[in-house]
Amino acid sequence: DLSLLGKQAALPASPDEARLETVPNPHPDALYLARFVAPEFTSLCPVTGQPDFAHLVIDYAPAKLIVESKSLKLFLASFRNHGAFHEDCVVTIAKRLVAATRPRWLRIGGYWYPRGGIPIDVFYQTGEPPAGLWLPDQGVPAYRGRG
Amino acid sequence: DLSLLGKQAALPASPDEARLETVPNPHPDALYLARFVAPEFTSLCPVTGQPDFAHLVIDYAPAKLIVESKSLKLFLASFRNHGAFHEDCVVTIAKRLVAATRPRWLRIGGYWYPRGGIPIDVFYQTGEPPAGLWLPDQGVPAYRGRG
Amino acid sequence: DLSLLGKQAALPASPDEARLETVPNPHPDALYLARFVAPEFTSLCPVTGQPDFAHLVIDYAPAKLIVESKSLKLFLASFRNHGAFHEDCVVTIAKRLVAATRPRWLRIGGYWYPRGGIPIDVFYQTGEPPAGLWLPDQGVPAYRGRG
Amino acid sequence: DLSLLGKQAALPASPDEARLETVPNPHPDALYLARFVAPEFTSLCPVTGQPDFAHLVIDYAPAKLIVESKSLKLFLASFRNHGAFHEDCVVTIAKRLVAATRPRWLRIGGYWYPRGGIPIDVFYQTGEPPAGLWLPDQGVPAYRGRG
Amino acid sequence: DLSLLGKQAALPASPDEARLETVPNPHPDALYLARFVAPEFTSLCPVTGQPDFAHLVIDYAPAKLIVESKSLKLFLASFRNHGAFHEDCVVTIAKRLVAATRPRWLRIGGYWYPRGGIPIDVFYQTGEPPAGLWLPDQGVPAYRGRG
Amino acid sequence: DLSLLGKQAALPASPDEARLETVPNPHPDALYLARFVAPEFTSLCPVTGQPDFAHLVIDYAPAKLIVESKSLKLFLASFRNHGAFHEDCVVTIAKRLVAATRPRWLRIGGYWYPRGGIPIDVFYQTGEPPAGLWLPDQGVPAYRGRG
Amino acid sequence: DLSLLGKQAALPASPDEARLETVPNPHPDALYLARFVAPEFTSLCPVTGQPDFAHLVIDYAPAKLIVESKSLKLFLASFRNHGAFHEDCVVTIAKRLVAATRPRWLRIGGYWYPRGGIPIDVFYQTGEPPAGLWLPDQGVPAYRGRG
Amino acid sequence: DLSLLGKQAALPASPDEARLETVPNPHPDALYLARFVAPEFTSLCPVTGQPDFAHLVIDYAPAKLIVESKSLKLFLASFRNHGAFHEDCVVTIAKRLVAATRPRWLRIGGYWYPRGGIPIDVFYQTGEPPAGLWLPDQGVPAYRGRG
Amino acid sequence: DLSLLGKQAALPASPDEARLETVPNPHPDALYLARFVAPEFTSLCPVTGQPDFAHLVIDYAPAKLIVESKSLKLFLASFRNHGAFHEDCVVTIAKRLVAATRPRWLRIGGYWYPRGGIPIDVFYQTGEPPAGLWLPDQGVPAYRGRG
Amino acid sequence: DLSLLGKQAALPASPDEARLETVPNPHPDALYLARFVAPEFTSLCPVTGQPDFAHLVIDYAPAKLIVESKSLKLFLASFRNHGAFHEDCVVTIAKRLVAATRPRWLRIGGYWYPRGGIPIDVFYQTGEPPAGLWLPDQGVPAYRGRG
Ligand SMILES: [Ca+2]
Ligand SMILES: [Ca+2]
Ligand SMILES: [Ca+2]
Ligand SMILES: [Ca+2]
Ligand SMILES: [Ca+2]
Ligand SMILES: [Ca+2]
Ligand SMILES: [Ca+2]
Ligand SMILES: [Ca+2]
Ligand SMILES: [Ca+2]
Ligand SMILES: [Ca+2]
Ligand SMILES: [Ca+2]
Ligand SMILES: [Ca+2]
Ligand SMILES: [Ca+2]
Ligand SMILES: [Ca+2]
Ligand SMILES: [Ca+2]
Ligand SMILES: [Ca+2]
Repeated sequence: DLSLLGKQAALPASPDEARLETVPNPHPDALYLARFVAPEFTSLCPVTGQPDFAHLVIDYAPAKLIVESKSLKLFLASFRNHGAFHEDCVVTIAKRLVAATRPRWLRIGGYWYPRGGIPIDVFYQTGEPPAGLWLPDQGVPAYRGRG
Repeated sequence: DLSLLGKQAALPASPDEARLETVPNPHPDALYLARFVAPEFTSLCPVTGQPDFAHLVIDYAPAKLIVESKSLKLFLASFRNHGAFHEDCVVTIAKRLVAATRPRWLRIGGYWYPRGGIPIDVFYQTGEPPAGLWLPDQGVPAYRGRG
Repeated sequence: DLSLLGKQAALPASPDEARLETVPNPHPDALYLARFVAPEFTSLCPVTGQPDFAHLVIDYAPAKLIVESKSLKLFLASFRNHGAFHEDCVVTIAKRLVAATRPRWLRIGGYWYPRGGIPIDVFYQTGEPPAGLWLPDQGVPAYRGRG
Repeated sequence: DLSLLGKQAALPASPDEARLETVPNPHPDALYLARFVAPEFTSLCPVTGQPDFAHLVIDYAPAKLIVESKSLKLFLASFRNHGAFHEDCVVTIAKRLVAATRPRWLRIGGYWYPRGGIPIDVFYQTGEPPAGLWLPDQGVPAYRGRG
Repeated sequence: DLSLLGKQAALPASPDEARLETVPNPHPDALYLARFVAPEFTSLCPVTGQPDFAHLVIDYAPAKLIVESKSLKLFLASFRNHGAFHEDCVVTIAKRLVAATRPRWLRIGGYWYPRGGIPIDVFYQTGEPPAGLWLPDQGVPAYRGRG
Repeated sequence: DLSLLGKQAALPASPDEARLETVPNPHPDALYLARFVAPEFTSLCPVTGQPDFAHLVIDYAPAKLIVESKSLKLFLASFRNHGAFHEDCVVTIAKRLVAATRPRWLRIGGYWYPRGGIPIDVFYQTGEPPAGLWLPDQGVPAYRGRG
Repeated sequence: DLSLLGKQAALPASPDEARLETVPNPHPDALYLARFVAPEFTSLCPVTGQPDFAHLVIDYAPAKLIVESKSLKLFLASFRNHGAFHEDCVVTIAKRLVAATRPRWLRIGGYWYPRGGIPIDVFYQTGEPPAGLWLPDQGVPAYRGRG
Repeated sequence: DLSLLGKQAALPASPDEARLETVPNPHPDALYLARFVAPEFTSLCPVTGQPDFAHLVIDYAPAKLIVESKSLKLFLASFRNHGAFHEDCVVTIAKRLVAATRPRWLRIGGYWYPRGGIPIDVFYQTGEPPAGLWLPDQGVPAYRGRG
Repeated sequence: DLSLLGKQAALPASPDEARLETVPNPHPDALYLARFVAPEFTSLCPVTGQPDFAHLVIDYAPAKLIVESKSLKLFLASFRNHGAFHEDCVVTIAKRLVAATRPRWLRIGGYWYPRGGIPIDVFYQTGEPPAGLWLPDQGVPAYRGRG
Repeated sequence: DLSLLGKQAALPASPDEARLETVPNPHPDALYLARFVAPEFTSLCPVTGQPDFAHLVIDYAPAKLIVESKSLKLFLASFRNHGAFHEDCVVTIAKRLVAATRPRWLRIGGYWYPRGGIPIDVFYQTGEPPAGLWLPDQGVPAYRGRG
């Protein structure tokens, strides 16, 4: 029962209040990769309270469940007024997705906007990718500065 | 006997009505890769009935048969008024091509246009690529948002 | 007296509570253009409450005052939990900057992330640019979709 | 009264059945440009019945009304099973938008996918742009072929 | 009566044997631009008999007639075994199109592949563009050499 | 004895009439790769007689002989009025080069211009690359469509 | 007498200590533009003492003198430990160059690296460009953020 | 105790005087990569005293500690008036980061601006990357010269 | 009588010894632009004797004569061991072309490789372009430095 | 004793007369890669005497010595009036660098400007790269032709 897809849904107040919904994987026998790109991620700095921004790329190989994309969108949007360090955001999202979908494998690349002229990228994966999985590069260009 | 190449051909009403035609592989002894890029793929969302769009890249290593490209084009166009989830579209196309051409190996990358700000990509292959096959990256750039 | 530059400053709760600070233009005799790029703009949709994102480029020709950039950053960040239509955001920002700095001329390009597959861009200026002003194109690439 | 925004809405069967909705321009005194990019346009060839695809960029300077973007999206989607030549599609869309919104000025660039190796682009505007309107280039790159 | 569209058509042996077909302009009252990109142009050098290659971009503002695109494709392909200098190819194509369609205005950019390390581009137009015509840059990137 | 380099040479009428010339490899002891890029390849469709175009990239590791580049250019140009399928062109070129130069290894990437909206790429190699050979990606970007 | 070109020269301690050298314009009758790109500009923030970075593009139309490029390089490098606001840097450089070379016309684009997520660009020119001067766009791409 | 984050901090006079601060790794059990991009690096040539510039990309896999990013920024800025060869800069930065954070693994790519027309890049890593670490390419484009 | 085209021709020892050949303009009545791109220009620094490199783009509107491209190539190559300043090279080439072809109008953009980190571009034209001439931007990207 | 760095040095008349100077590797214990990009390489064709141009990328892992970069620049410039085939140039440079620096490993990519429409690239390395060496792709884009 999907509670969100095709309906108006309020923005969850925090990651804790957001619900990741799943549907059965239509091809549980197939080893494949699904990639979500979320260029609209924003959270707050836990020290200064200032907004942080990131471009996220989420790759996972589903097992029995796939994540319903509108619930994923709302989950990501729930970090909007949540204070957390960059590394925590990326790993927390990974853990929540793992808990909800029990995938064969997952990785998240978090590409943060620069602060003080220096951006941070965080690359996390649950372990070695499964043999035979097709795993294209995320291909996010490096930060360049100006000129 | 090719029924479609070099002739006017009506758009099939559904994937079921589309016919994938083949011709003998002119080099059945050679291990090579053929890549088709289909930037004009569109289907319908099975839940909302709204159109979905994707850019597809199909790679396969032919065995005894190669797919005739006009029949491939019409097969892909037959999803135009067909409702199916993103993952199903990609895997269904893969299965139909496997059934029609019995290739040594096949993979499909489906790069979907964003919905709710978040695009989905689906990467499927029939298994480990054959040793010695030259298999270039599909090289489709990541979704970027704006700016 | 700058209250924000070089100090820790809390995020204003709304545009109304944000204060745009100015400093004297060091070259009030010169006709020049200052451009700010704000790739981290986000507001809320007034109808659905969902977050919206935009990449903003602000160009202005200062008269007696220039805007202090940290106060500009905080002002833009104050839209974070504010509901407003795309056109209103862009024009409101323009009006606030005009009120605070009384420039010779100003324009804002607002490049919004897509919704329903279709992004909106808004291009506003206070009137014809002054003769002799050097006014480079903002050069933000068009939205492309996928592939 | 908006009948579509924030609601589930069926795909109109044809352009004639689609309804372009408007809302009052929040800044009717301001001369500004709104740009919509529609990379998901598709129609049918009236001679062969084969699908055609285009990337559309719509620029207009609103007067008293602005177009509601979800109704615009559904209007564009209504060409899906409609047969029309490239030039007709572009000009019909322009005329419908002019009739619905009575803008100060409007232009549409239609960038069609190649057929027979040669793409067509169609550039239409309602006349000379109003003086003082900021009118950035649409910036769609020329078709390149391969390599 | 179109003799070529939707039918199998032989490649004309020379430009003289090719026939440019036209159809009535569906919007003869509107001043608009149609752009064709032909990245597959090839002719022979009249001195050495070696093949030459060019990327052509054709812009014209139709009056009463528009060119039928398949006949245009065949006309361009008819230069395949025809010897002519670069400047002659571009101007001959322009003159043939002018004779066939009697446009309000026309221009052709011919971007030739390098010979001896130096490519030639030829830019021709029938005169000043009509006032009010929207005329985007052809945007073909300059030749760069290597690196 | 080179019959072609530094001399005027007629275009061979067909691949059969073209002669691939070789010179001794100046470094037969070294394992290295030579890459030729031929962006000006054209042949005819054997079914419809229409021209086809491709961008070819040829990589090989010479043994005792290297191919003389002007003879290679003329050989490739000899397909100009030759009818052959895409796969045949690529493999025929590969076989001719292998026969003429007896390389340690060879591969050809054939990147064809789109027909019916869908381009085909063909990737062939003579087998696993030799250990220790430096083999950069050919880096030809994927076909994109428009926008 | 050039004191710097082709010699070892110490870095000037401040802009005041740097000497802009000139040579006679070899073509004082010709109206032409010289452009210098200085991607290695750095100064200090006068408030915080932190380093700032910019990419500068300097365009000028020489009259009787041209600037010697090594003295220009050293002059620009002399801002390394100098505190100044962005606008002051750009205008000071402009004034120094005007004083040293008495050009027909000059402009400087200063493209600063982001601070607080928002870069500033400064565009200054000495007035309307002279009629007949060829003045290409500086073509520096807009700042993009990440993704 | 962080002495720098969220506070005004003076620029250290040399690398020796700069202090790299750390915080506990919030996920010491996870094998992940953090990437910093520092496009604003500058040092002095130890022979000529002229400024050198580089774009640095730092990748490391934290163990028990992560580096605090403001202290990293100040450490990098401390090379501003320090004379050192390119190779020394890169390796010194690596050693300082290793000493401060005791990472599982670290690498630094230093991409220097050209001198005499030839830029140098330096690629250093502490050894083979740990198995299972996700290690994207740094993706810095090669220097190109002009055109 | 062309002495160079289709023949082996020695490299002229200096610009003075090079001969620019012309042929009658096949369309002396038409106002059009011919563009040559010469990415292989090199000369010597008259002070240090070190090689300099430039990417040149030459645009001209022929009157009665057009330049024969092989003689142009040899003329440009004749600067190889010639010492001249950047500005002199560009203007000398312009004057030689004007003297040889007596064009309606001419311009040359010289884009030099960086020395000391700072490249120079030189933009010269013979005067205001003729009215009605189509004159696309040369589109050479600005120098960027690294990263 | 460096004879060239920081001094005026004449251009060597040939590769034989050029001297590659070295300095001790400051980190002989570390396995790292140094990359030089030389976009200004030119030699002469040994058959026709015409200039050839290449963009070279040199990667090596130093052992006890590193090459002094100014001597490298002069060595490369010494090919200016030297006749040699493309393959010979690349391998000769490699051998000279190996002889002078005795590196752990070396490779050179030579990317030549097109002749007859077809460029040649040469990829040479001294053998398998050492285990644990970080070896980024050289990333030089493929030649594209026009359009
Ligand atoms: Ca920043
Ligand atoms: Ca820069
Ligand atoms: Ca953005
Ligand atoms: Ca969307
Ligand atoms: Ca697409
Ligand atoms: Ca086509
Ligand atoms: Ca091509
Ligand atoms: Ca180059
Ligand atoms: Ca097509
Ligand atoms: Ca598109
Ligand atoms: Ca982004
Ligand atoms: Ca330099
Ligand atoms: Ca170049
Ligand atoms: Ca940089
Ligand atoms: Ca060539
Ligand atoms: Ca092309």
